[in-house]
Amino acid sequence: MSKKPLILVTNDDGISAPGIRALIDVMTEIGDVVVVAPDSPQSAMGHAITINSTLHLNRVSAPNALVTEYSCSGTPVDSVKLAVNEILKRKPDLCVSGINHGSNSSINVIYSGTMSAVVEAGIEGIQAIGFSLSDYDWNADFETIKPFIKKITLQVLANKLPEGTVLNVNFPKLKREDIKGIKICRQAKAIWMEKFDKRKTPQGKDYYWLTGEFVNLDKGEDTDEWALSNGYISIVPVQYDLTAHHAIQHLNSWDL
Amino acid sequence: MSKKPLILVTNDDGISAPGIRALIDVMTEIGDVVVVAPDSPQSAMGHAITINSTLHLNRVSAPNALVTEYSCSGTPVDSVKLAVNEILKRKPDLCVSGINHGSNSSINVIYSGTMSAVVEAGIEGIQAIGFSLSDYDWNADFETIKPFIKKITLQVLANKLPEGTVLNVNFPKLKREDIKGIKICRQAKAIWMEKFDKRKTPQGKDYYWLTGEFVNLDKGEDTDEWALSNGYISIVPVQYDLTAHHAIQHLNSWDL
Repeated sequence: MSKKPLILVTNDDGISAPGIRALIDVMTEIGDVVVVAPDSPQSAMGHAITINSTLHLNRVSAPNALVTEYSCSGTPVDSVKLAVNEILKRKPDLCVSGINHGSNSSINVIYSGTMSAVVEAGIEGIQAIGFSLSDYDWNADFETIKPFIKKITLQVLANKLPEGTVLNVNFPKLKREDIKGIKICRQAKAIWMEKFDKRKTPQGKDYYWLTGEFVNLDKGEDTDEWALSNGYISIVPVQYDLTAHHAIQHLNSWDL
Repeated sequence: MSKKPLILVTNDDGISAPGIRALIDVMTEIGDVVVVAPDSPQSAMGHAITINSTLHLNRVSAPNALVTEYSCSGTPVDSVKLAVNEILKRKPDLCVSGINHGSNSSINVIYSGTMSAVVEAGIEGIQAIGFSLSDYDWNADFETIKPFIKKITLQVLANKLPEGTVLNVNFPKLKREDIKGIKICRQAKAIWMEKFDKRKTPQGKDYYWLTGEFVNLDKGEDTDEWALSNGYISIVPVQYDLTAHHAIQHLNSWDL
Protein backbone atom coordinates (compact mmCIF):
# COMPACT_ATOMS: atom_id res chain seq x y z
CA MET A 1 0.00 0.00 0.00
CA SER A 2 1.65 3.22 -1.11
CA LYS A 3 -0.60 5.53 0.89
CA LYS A 4 -1.01 5.07 4.62
CA PRO A 5 -4.44 3.70 5.55
CA LEU A 6 -6.79 5.90 7.58
CA ILE A 7 -7.76 4.01 10.75
CA LEU A 8 -10.60 4.88 13.12
CA VAL A 9 -10.11 3.57 16.65
CA THR A 10 -12.93 3.26 19.19
CA ASN A 11 -13.97 1.10 22.14
CA ASP A 12 -16.62 0.71 24.84
CA ASP A 13 -14.50 0.96 27.98
CA GLY A 14 -13.98 4.68 27.40
CA ILE A 15 -11.20 6.71 25.86
CA SER A 16 -8.94 6.53 28.92
CA ALA A 17 -8.93 2.73 29.19
CA PRO A 18 -5.53 0.99 28.92
CA GLY A 19 -6.95 -1.34 26.27
CA ILE A 20 -7.58 1.42 23.73
CA ARG A 21 -4.16 2.91 24.47
CA ALA A 22 -2.55 -0.40 23.48
CA LEU A 23 -4.66 -0.57 20.33
CA ILE A 24 -3.68 2.98 19.35
CA ASP A 25 0.00 2.01 19.80
CA VAL A 26 -0.34 -0.81 17.29
CA MET A 27 -2.39 1.19 14.79
CA THR A 28 0.11 4.08 14.67
CA GLU A 29 2.62 1.54 13.30
CA ILE A 30 0.22 0.82 10.44
CA GLY A 31 -1.59 4.00 9.44
CA ASP A 32 -2.94 7.45 10.20
CA VAL A 33 -5.00 7.13 13.32
CA VAL A 34 -8.05 9.06 14.51
CA VAL A 35 -9.64 8.11 17.83
CA VAL A 36 -13.31 8.75 18.60
CA ALA A 37 -14.36 6.92 21.73
CA PRO A 38 -16.90 7.27 24.55
CA ASP A 39 -15.97 9.63 27.37
CA SER A 40 -17.16 7.05 29.93
CA PRO A 41 -17.52 3.25 30.13
CA GLN A 42 -20.23 1.91 27.80
CA SER A 43 -19.89 -1.83 28.30
CA ALA A 44 -22.98 -3.91 27.54
CA MET A 45 -24.58 -1.07 25.61
CA GLY A 46 -25.19 -3.36 22.62
CA HIS A 47 -26.15 -1.47 19.49
CA ALA A 48 -27.73 1.42 21.41
CA ILE A 49 -27.77 4.83 19.75
CA THR A 50 -28.66 8.21 21.23
CA ILE A 51 -31.83 9.62 19.68
CA ASN A 52 -33.55 11.23 22.66
CA SER A 53 -30.71 13.40 23.88
CA THR A 54 -27.89 15.52 22.54
CA LEU A 55 -24.39 14.34 21.61
CA HIS A 56 -21.17 16.12 22.47
CA LEU A 57 -17.69 15.75 21.02
CA ASN A 58 -14.52 17.03 22.68
CA ARG A 59 -11.14 17.11 21.03
CA VAL A 60 -8.88 15.76 23.75
CA SER A 61 -5.54 15.59 21.90
CA ALA A 62 -3.16 18.52 21.64
CA PRO A 63 -3.13 20.35 18.24
CA ASN A 64 0.33 18.94 17.43
CA ALA A 65 -0.27 15.42 18.73
CA LEU A 66 0.59 12.46 16.47
CA VAL A 67 -2.89 11.01 16.91
CA THR A 68 -6.10 13.07 16.79
CA GLU A 69 -8.46 12.07 19.58
CA TYR A 70 -12.06 12.96 20.36
CA SER A 71 -14.19 11.87 23.28
CA CYS A 72 -17.89 11.40 22.63
CA SER A 73 -20.74 11.67 25.13
CA GLY A 74 -22.66 8.84 23.45
CA THR A 75 -22.42 5.11 22.90
CA PRO A 76 -19.79 3.23 20.85
CA VAL A 77 -22.17 3.22 17.86
CA ASP A 78 -22.73 6.97 18.23
CA SER A 79 -18.94 7.39 18.23
CA VAL A 80 -18.59 5.61 14.90
CA LYS A 81 -21.46 7.57 13.34
CA LEU A 82 -20.04 10.91 14.52
CA ALA A 83 -16.53 9.98 13.39
CA VAL A 84 -17.63 9.02 9.90
CA ASN A 85 -20.07 11.90 9.41
CA GLU A 86 -18.60 14.80 11.33
CA ILE A 87 -14.89 14.26 11.95
CA LEU A 88 -13.21 12.26 9.21
CA LYS A 89 -12.63 13.94 5.85
CA ARG A 90 -13.01 10.61 4.03
CA LYS A 91 -14.34 7.14 4.78
CA PRO A 92 -11.69 5.32 6.84
CA ASP A 93 -9.97 2.24 5.41
CA LEU A 94 -10.43 0.42 8.68
CA CYS A 95 -12.22 0.69 12.00
CA VAL A 96 -10.84 -1.16 15.02
CA SER A 97 -12.51 -1.36 18.42
CA GLY A 98 -11.07 -2.38 21.77
CA ILE A 99 -8.92 -3.79 23.13
CA ASN A 100 -11.83 -4.74 25.32
CA HIS A 101 -11.17 -5.50 28.95
CA GLY A 102 -12.92 -8.88 29.01
CA SER A 103 -14.05 -11.47 26.50
CA ASN A 104 -16.58 -10.81 23.74
CA SER A 105 -16.66 -14.39 22.54
CA SER A 106 -19.78 -16.45 21.95
CA ILE A 107 -23.13 -14.82 22.82
CA ASN A 108 -21.32 -11.82 24.33
CA VAL A 109 -21.08 -10.45 20.78
CA ILE A 110 -24.77 -9.53 21.12
CA TYR A 111 -24.36 -7.44 24.30
CA SER A 112 -20.98 -5.95 23.50
CA GLY A 113 -20.55 -2.26 22.83
CA THR A 114 -17.10 -3.03 21.40
CA MET A 115 -18.57 -5.32 18.76
CA SER A 116 -21.56 -3.06 18.06
CA ALA A 117 -19.14 -0.30 17.04
CA VAL A 118 -17.51 -2.83 14.70
CA VAL A 119 -20.86 -3.92 13.26
CA GLU A 120 -21.86 -0.27 12.75
CA ALA A 121 -18.65 0.34 10.79
CA GLY A 122 -19.38 -2.76 8.73
CA ILE A 123 -22.89 -1.52 7.94
CA GLU A 124 -21.32 1.73 6.73
CA GLY A 125 -19.07 -0.23 4.36
CA ILE A 126 -15.86 -0.04 6.40
CA GLN A 127 -13.52 -2.98 7.07
CA ALA A 128 -13.78 -3.54 10.80
CA ILE A 129 -12.30 -5.63 13.60
CA GLY A 130 -13.06 -5.91 17.31
CA PHE A 131 -10.31 -7.03 19.70
CA SER A 132 -10.98 -8.33 23.20
CA LEU A 133 -8.77 -9.88 25.87
CA SER A 134 -10.22 -12.45 28.28
CA ASP A 135 -9.04 -10.48 31.27
CA TYR A 136 -11.23 -7.93 33.09
CA ASP A 137 -8.25 -6.50 34.99
CA TRP A 138 -7.77 -2.79 34.28
CA ASN A 139 -4.02 -3.53 34.31
CA ALA A 140 -4.22 -6.58 32.05
CA ASP A 141 -1.19 -7.47 29.93
CA PHE A 142 -1.90 -6.02 26.49
CA GLU A 143 1.78 -6.08 25.40
CA THR A 144 1.74 -9.83 24.73
CA ILE A 145 -1.03 -9.61 22.15
CA LYS A 146 0.16 -6.54 20.24
CA PRO A 147 2.09 -8.54 17.58
CA PHE A 148 -1.01 -10.65 16.87
CA ILE A 149 -3.18 -7.56 16.54
CA LYS A 150 -0.74 -6.12 14.04
CA LYS A 151 -0.64 -9.34 12.02
CA ILE A 152 -4.42 -9.71 11.88
CA THR A 153 -4.91 -6.04 10.97
CA LEU A 154 -2.37 -6.20 8.14
CA GLN A 155 -4.08 -9.31 6.77
CA VAL A 156 -7.47 -7.56 6.78
CA LEU A 157 -6.03 -4.54 4.98
CA ALA A 158 -4.29 -6.75 2.41
CA ASN A 159 -7.05 -9.30 1.74
CA LYS A 160 -10.28 -7.44 2.54
CA LEU A 161 -13.14 -9.09 4.40
CA PRO A 162 -16.03 -10.66 2.48
CA GLU A 163 -18.90 -8.17 2.00
CA GLY A 164 -21.23 -7.89 4.96
CA THR A 165 -18.64 -9.37 7.32
CA VAL A 166 -16.62 -7.99 10.24
CA LEU A 167 -14.27 -9.79 12.65
CA ASN A 168 -14.63 -10.62 16.34
CA VAL A 169 -11.14 -11.40 17.66
CA ASN A 170 -10.70 -12.71 21.20
CA PHE A 171 -7.43 -13.42 23.01
CA PRO A 172 -6.94 -15.91 25.83
CA LYS A 173 -5.24 -14.66 28.98
CA LEU A 174 -1.94 -16.43 28.41
CA LYS A 175 1.78 -15.79 28.27
CA ARG A 176 3.26 -15.35 24.78
CA GLU A 177 4.85 -18.80 24.76
CA ASP A 178 1.59 -20.47 25.73
CA ILE A 179 -0.46 -19.05 22.82
CA LYS A 180 -0.72 -21.86 20.27
CA GLY A 181 -1.90 -19.79 17.30
CA ILE A 182 -5.00 -18.35 15.64
CA LYS A 183 -8.20 -20.25 14.80
CA ILE A 184 -11.10 -19.17 12.56
CA CYS A 185 -14.20 -20.18 14.51
CA ARG A 186 -17.94 -20.06 14.75
CA GLN A 187 -19.75 -18.40 17.67
CA ALA A 188 -20.26 -20.96 20.43
CA LYS A 189 -23.80 -21.55 21.63
CA ALA A 190 -23.82 -20.24 25.18
CA ILE A 191 -26.00 -18.32 27.60
CA TRP A 192 -25.76 -16.19 30.68
CA MET A 193 -27.56 -17.77 33.61
CA GLU A 194 -28.79 -14.67 35.34
CA LYS A 195 -28.77 -14.37 39.06
CA PHE A 196 -30.29 -11.11 40.18
CA ASP A 197 -28.85 -9.88 43.44
CA LYS A 198 -32.01 -8.63 45.20
CA ARG A 199 -31.45 -5.98 47.86
CA LYS A 200 -33.45 -3.48 49.88
CA THR A 201 -33.14 0.30 49.64
CA PRO A 202 -32.73 2.19 52.95
CA GLN A 203 -36.48 2.76 52.63
CA GLY A 204 -37.16 -1.00 52.48
CA LYS A 205 -38.01 -1.23 48.76
CA ASP A 206 -36.63 -4.08 46.61
CA TYR A 207 -34.08 -3.39 43.92
CA TYR A 208 -31.79 -5.56 41.81
CA TRP A 209 -28.26 -5.87 40.50
CA LEU A 210 -27.83 -7.96 37.37
CA THR A 211 -25.21 -10.67 37.81
CA GLY A 212 -24.83 -13.99 36.11
CA GLU A 213 -22.79 -17.00 35.19
CA PHE A 214 -21.62 -17.76 31.66
CA VAL A 215 -22.57 -21.27 30.56
CA ASN A 216 -21.15 -22.78 27.37
CA LEU A 217 -23.73 -25.19 25.92
CA ASP A 218 -21.63 -26.05 22.88
CA LYS A 219 -19.26 -29.02 22.72
CA GLY A 220 -18.06 -28.17 19.21
CA GLU A 221 -14.31 -27.92 18.63
CA ASP A 222 -14.84 -25.34 15.90
CA THR A 223 -16.15 -22.69 18.32
CA ASP A 224 -14.52 -19.59 19.78
CA GLU A 225 -14.98 -20.94 23.30
CA TRP A 226 -13.11 -24.13 22.45
CA ALA A 227 -10.29 -22.17 20.84
CA LEU A 228 -9.89 -19.82 23.82
CA SER A 229 -9.99 -22.69 26.32
CA ASN A 230 -7.35 -24.54 24.35
CA GLY A 231 -4.76 -21.79 24.03
CA TYR A 232 -5.79 -20.26 20.70
CA ILE A 233 -6.76 -16.78 19.61
CA SER A 234 -10.29 -16.98 18.16
CA ILE A 235 -11.51 -15.10 15.10
CA VAL A 236 -15.23 -15.26 14.31
CA PRO A 237 -16.48 -13.66 11.09
CA VAL A 238 -19.64 -11.79 12.14
CA GLN A 239 -22.52 -10.73 9.89
CA TYR A 240 -25.33 -8.22 10.43
CA ASP A 241 -27.78 -9.86 8.08
CA LEU A 242 -29.66 -11.54 10.93
CA THR A 243 -31.98 -13.47 8.60
CA ALA A 244 -32.20 -17.16 9.51
CA HIS A 245 -32.20 -18.07 5.82
CA HIS A 246 -32.53 -21.80 6.56
CA ALA A 247 -35.85 -21.12 8.34
CA ILE A 248 -37.57 -19.41 5.43
CA GLN A 249 -38.64 -22.60 3.68
CA HIS A 250 -39.93 -24.06 6.94
CA LEU A 251 -42.04 -20.96 7.66
CA ASN A 252 -43.47 -21.01 4.16
CA SER A 253 -45.12 -24.34 5.02
CA TRP A 254 -47.15 -22.68 7.80
CA ASP A 255 -50.80 -21.66 7.41
CA LEU A 256 -50.30 -17.89 7.27
CA MET B 1 -53.53 -26.95 23.70
CA SER B 2 -55.39 -27.99 26.85
CA LYS B 3 -53.59 -25.61 29.19
CA LYS B 4 -53.48 -21.91 28.47
CA PRO B 5 -50.04 -20.75 27.34
CA LEU B 6 -48.12 -18.34 29.58
CA ILE B 7 -47.26 -15.25 27.55
CA LEU B 8 -44.74 -12.54 28.48
CA VAL B 9 -45.42 -9.17 26.86
CA THR B 10 -42.84 -6.40 26.61
CA ASN B 11 -41.86 -3.51 24.34
CA ASP B 12 -39.44 -0.61 23.97
CA ASP B 13 -41.86 2.32 23.79
CA GLY B 14 -42.69 1.96 27.47
CA ILE B 15 -45.50 0.29 29.37
CA SER B 16 -48.00 3.09 28.74
CA ALA B 17 -47.67 3.10 24.94
CA PRO B 18 -50.85 2.38 22.91
CA GLY B 19 -48.95 -0.28 20.96
CA ILE B 20 -48.36 -2.54 23.94
CA ARG B 21 -51.99 -2.05 25.06
CA ALA B 22 -53.17 -3.41 21.69
CA LEU B 23 -50.76 -6.35 21.96
CA ILE B 24 -51.99 -7.16 25.48
CA ASP B 25 -55.59 -7.16 24.15
CA VAL B 26 -54.73 -9.81 21.58
CA MET B 27 -52.67 -11.95 23.95
CA THR B 28 -55.42 -12.12 26.59
CA GLU B 29 -57.53 -13.88 23.95
CA ILE B 30 -54.81 -16.55 23.67
CA GLY B 31 -53.26 -17.14 27.08
CA ASP B 32 -52.33 -16.02 30.57
CA VAL B 33 -50.52 -12.73 30.19
CA VAL B 34 -47.81 -11.12 32.30
CA VAL B 35 -46.44 -7.74 31.23
CA VAL B 36 -42.95 -6.57 32.14
CA ALA B 37 -42.02 -3.47 30.18
CA PRO B 38 -39.78 -0.42 30.54
CA ASP B 39 -41.20 2.46 32.57
CA SER B 40 -39.98 4.94 29.92
CA PRO B 41 -39.28 4.91 26.18
CA GLN B 42 -36.25 2.77 25.28
CA SER B 43 -36.25 2.99 21.50
CA ALA B 44 -32.93 2.40 19.76
CA MET B 45 -31.45 0.83 22.89
CA GLY B 46 -30.36 -2.22 20.91
CA HIS B 47 -29.29 -5.12 23.11
CA ALA B 48 -28.19 -2.85 25.97
CA ILE B 49 -28.32 -4.26 29.48
CA THR B 50 -27.93 -2.48 32.81
CA ILE B 51 -24.79 -3.60 34.62
CA ASN B 52 -23.52 -0.36 36.15
CA SER B 53 -26.65 0.72 37.94
CA THR B 54 -29.54 -0.75 39.89
CA LEU B 55 -32.80 -2.08 38.48
CA HIS B 56 -36.24 -1.43 39.87
CA LEU B 57 -39.52 -3.25 39.32
CA ASN B 58 -42.93 -1.83 40.16
CA ARG B 59 -46.15 -3.79 40.07
CA VAL B 60 -48.51 -1.42 38.31
CA SER B 61 -51.63 -3.59 37.98
CA ALA B 62 -54.24 -3.89 40.70
CA PRO B 63 -54.15 -7.13 42.77
CA ASN B 64 -57.37 -8.37 41.11
CA ALA B 65 -56.53 -7.27 37.57
CA LEU B 66 -56.87 -9.79 34.73
CA VAL B 67 -53.34 -9.11 33.58
CA THR B 68 -50.35 -8.78 35.92
CA GLU B 69 -48.17 -5.85 34.92
CA TYR B 70 -44.77 -4.66 36.07
CA SER B 71 -42.82 -1.61 34.96
CA CYS B 72 -39.04 -1.94 34.87
CA SER B 73 -36.48 0.85 35.21
CA GLY B 74 -34.13 -0.81 32.70
CA THR B 75 -33.96 -1.66 29.02
CA PRO B 76 -36.19 -4.08 27.08
CA VAL B 77 -33.55 -6.81 27.51
CA ASP B 78 -33.40 -6.12 31.27
CA SER B 79 -37.20 -6.46 31.33
CA VAL B 80 -37.07 -9.94 29.79
CA LYS B 81 -34.27 -11.06 32.11
CA LEU B 82 -36.11 -9.80 35.21
CA ALA B 83 -39.40 -11.32 34.05
CA VAL B 84 -37.89 -14.76 33.49
CA ASN B 85 -35.71 -14.81 36.59
CA GLU B 86 -37.64 -12.83 39.20
CA ILE B 87 -41.31 -12.62 38.28
CA LEU B 88 -42.54 -15.65 36.36
CA LYS B 89 -42.96 -18.91 38.24
CA ARG B 90 -42.10 -20.92 35.10
CA LYS B 91 -40.50 -20.28 31.72
CA PRO B 92 -43.14 -18.63 29.51
CA ASP B 93 -44.41 -20.44 26.41
CA LEU B 94 -44.06 -17.27 24.39
CA CYS B 95 -42.63 -13.77 24.56
CA VAL B 96 -44.09 -11.04 22.37
CA SER B 97 -42.72 -7.53 22.05
CA GLY B 98 -44.36 -4.41 20.64
CA ILE B 99 -46.47 -3.37 18.94
CA ASN B 100 -43.68 -0.97 18.10
CA HIS B 101 -44.61 2.53 17.00
CA GLY B 102 -42.55 2.52 13.80
CA SER B 103 -40.93 -0.03 11.53
CA ASN B 104 -38.25 -2.48 12.63
CA SER B 105 -37.70 -3.91 9.17
CA SER B 106 -34.36 -4.34 7.45
CA ILE B 107 -31.27 -3.04 9.31
CA ASN B 108 -33.52 -1.51 12.01
CA VAL B 109 -33.55 -4.95 13.63
CA ILE B 110 -30.01 -4.18 14.84
CA TYR B 111 -30.92 -0.93 16.63
CA SER B 112 -34.35 -1.95 17.86
CA GLY B 113 -35.08 -2.40 21.55
CA THR B 114 -38.29 -4.22 20.58
CA MET B 115 -36.37 -6.86 18.65
CA SER B 116 -33.57 -7.10 21.21
CA ALA B 117 -36.14 -8.16 23.81
CA VAL B 118 -37.28 -10.81 21.34
CA VAL B 119 -33.73 -11.99 20.68
CA GLU B 120 -33.05 -12.15 24.42
CA ALA B 121 -36.12 -14.36 24.90
CA GLY B 122 -34.88 -16.55 22.03
CA ILE B 123 -31.46 -16.91 23.66
CA GLU B 124 -33.25 -18.03 26.84
CA GLY B 125 -35.04 -20.75 24.87
CA ILE B 126 -38.43 -19.04 24.62
CA GLN B 127 -40.52 -18.80 21.43
CA ALA B 128 -40.54 -15.10 20.61
CA ILE B 129 -42.07 -12.61 18.17
CA GLY B 130 -41.64 -8.87 17.68
CA PHE B 131 -44.47 -6.86 16.13
CA SER B 132 -43.99 -3.40 14.61
CA LEU B 133 -46.27 -1.08 12.68
CA SER B 134 -44.80 1.28 10.07
CA ASP B 135 -46.45 4.28 11.70
CA TYR B 136 -44.71 6.47 14.27
CA ASP B 137 -47.95 8.17 15.28
CA TRP B 138 -48.76 7.67 18.97
CA ASN B 139 -52.40 7.26 17.88
CA ALA B 140 -51.68 4.83 15.07
CA ASP B 141 -54.41 2.37 14.06
CA PHE B 142 -53.53 -0.88 15.82
CA GLU B 143 -57.05 -2.33 15.51
CA THR B 144 -56.59 -3.26 11.86
CA ILE B 145 -53.63 -5.52 12.52
CA LYS B 146 -54.93 -7.32 15.62
CA PRO B 147 -56.41 -10.30 13.67
CA PHE B 148 -53.06 -10.83 11.91
CA ILE B 149 -51.19 -10.73 15.20
CA LYS B 150 -53.52 -13.35 16.61
CA LYS B 151 -53.12 -15.59 13.56
CA ILE B 152 -49.32 -15.38 13.54
CA THR B 153 -49.12 -15.98 17.29
CA LEU B 154 -51.35 -19.06 17.13
CA GLN B 155 -49.22 -20.46 14.30
CA VAL B 156 -46.04 -20.00 16.34
CA LEU B 157 -47.60 -21.71 19.37
CA ALA B 158 -48.87 -24.58 17.21
CA ASN B 159 -45.83 -25.15 14.98
CA LYS B 160 -42.88 -23.92 17.09
CA LEU B 161 -40.06 -21.91 15.55
CA PRO B 162 -36.87 -23.65 14.41
CA GLU B 163 -34.22 -23.66 17.17
CA GLY B 164 -32.23 -20.47 17.43
CA THR B 165 -34.85 -18.49 15.53
CA VAL B 166 -37.26 -15.69 16.49
CA LEU B 167 -39.63 -13.64 14.31
CA ASN B 168 -39.52 -10.01 13.23
CA VAL B 169 -43.03 -9.10 12.03
CA ASN B 170 -43.66 -5.72 10.41
CA PHE B 171 -46.98 -4.29 9.28
CA PRO B 172 -47.49 -1.72 6.53
CA LYS B 173 -49.59 1.33 7.37
CA LEU B 174 -52.63 0.32 5.34
CA LYS B 175 -56.37 -0.17 5.67
CA ARG B 176 -57.56 -3.73 6.25
CA GLU B 177 -58.79 -4.15 2.68
CA ASP B 178 -55.48 -2.98 1.22
CA ILE B 179 -53.33 -5.55 3.06
CA LYS B 180 -52.54 -8.26 0.49
CA GLY B 181 -51.30 -10.94 2.89
CA ILE B 182 -48.22 -12.18 4.73
CA LYS B 183 -44.80 -12.84 3.21
CA ILE B 184 -41.83 -14.70 4.71
CA CYS B 185 -38.84 -12.53 3.83
CA ARG B 186 -35.17 -11.92 4.29
CA GLN B 187 -33.80 -8.72 5.87
CA ALA B 188 -33.29 -6.11 3.14
CA LYS B 189 -29.84 -4.62 2.79
CA ALA B 190 -30.28 -1.00 3.79
CA ILE B 191 -28.53 1.74 5.73
CA TRP B 192 -29.26 4.93 7.58
CA MET B 193 -27.60 7.90 5.95
CA GLU B 194 -26.83 9.96 9.01
CA LYS B 195 -27.23 13.67 9.01
CA PHE B 196 -26.14 15.17 12.29
CA ASP B 197 -27.99 18.34 13.13
CA LYS B 198 -25.15 20.47 14.52
CA ARG B 199 -26.19 23.26 16.89
CA LYS B 200 -24.64 25.62 19.41
CA THR B 201 -25.29 25.64 23.13
CA PRO B 202 -26.19 29.00 24.70
CA GLN B 203 -22.49 29.09 25.64
CA GLY B 204 -21.45 28.72 21.99
CA LYS B 205 -20.23 25.12 22.13
CA ASP B 206 -21.13 22.65 19.34
CA TYR B 207 -23.48 19.78 20.00
CA TYR B 208 -25.35 17.29 17.80
CA TRP B 209 -28.70 15.64 17.28
CA LEU B 210 -28.64 12.35 15.42
CA THR B 211 -31.00 12.33 12.44
CA GLY B 212 -30.91 10.38 9.24
CA GLU B 213 -32.55 9.06 6.15
CA PHE B 214 -33.32 5.39 5.57
CA VAL B 215 -31.92 4.15 2.26
CA ASN B 216 -32.87 0.73 0.87
CA LEU B 217 -29.94 -0.62 -1.17
CA ASP B 218 -31.67 -3.90 -1.98
CA LYS B 219 -33.71 -4.49 -5.13
CA GLY B 220 -34.67 -8.05 -4.11
CA GLU B 221 -38.35 -8.97 -4.16
CA ASP B 222 -37.82 -11.46 -1.35
CA THR B 223 -37.02 -8.74 1.22
CA ASP B 224 -39.07 -7.23 4.02
CA GLU B 225 -38.80 -3.78 2.45
CA TRP B 226 -40.26 -5.03 -0.82
CA ALA B 227 -43.11 -6.77 1.00
CA LEU B 228 -44.00 -3.70 3.06
CA SER B 229 -43.84 -1.41 0.03
CA ASN B 230 -46.11 -3.74 -1.89
CA GLY B 231 -48.90 -4.12 0.62
CA TYR B 232 -47.74 -7.23 2.50
CA ILE B 233 -47.01 -7.95 6.14
CA SER B 234 -43.37 -9.07 6.37
CA ILE B 235 -42.06 -11.87 8.59
CA VAL B 236 -38.29 -12.29 8.83
CA PRO B 237 -36.91 -15.25 10.78
CA VAL B 238 -34.06 -13.78 12.84
CA GLN B 239 -31.10 -15.64 14.33
CA TYR B 240 -28.63 -14.66 17.03
CA ASP B 241 -25.81 -16.87 15.82
CA LEU B 242 -24.04 -13.97 14.10
CA THR B 243 -21.35 -16.19 12.58
CA ALA B 244 -20.84 -15.52 8.87
CA HIS B 245 -20.42 -19.25 8.25
CA HIS B 246 -19.78 -18.73 4.53
CA ALA B 247 -16.73 -16.59 5.36
CA ILE B 248 -14.92 -19.19 7.46
CA GLN B 249 -13.41 -21.06 4.50
CA HIS B 250 -12.26 -17.78 2.94
CA LEU B 251 -10.56 -16.65 6.14
CA ASN B 252 -8.81 -19.99 6.50
CA SER B 253 -6.91 -19.20 3.29
CA TRP B 254 -5.32 -16.13 4.89
CA ASP B 255 -1.77 -16.09 6.27
CA LEU B 256 -2.63 -16.02 9.98
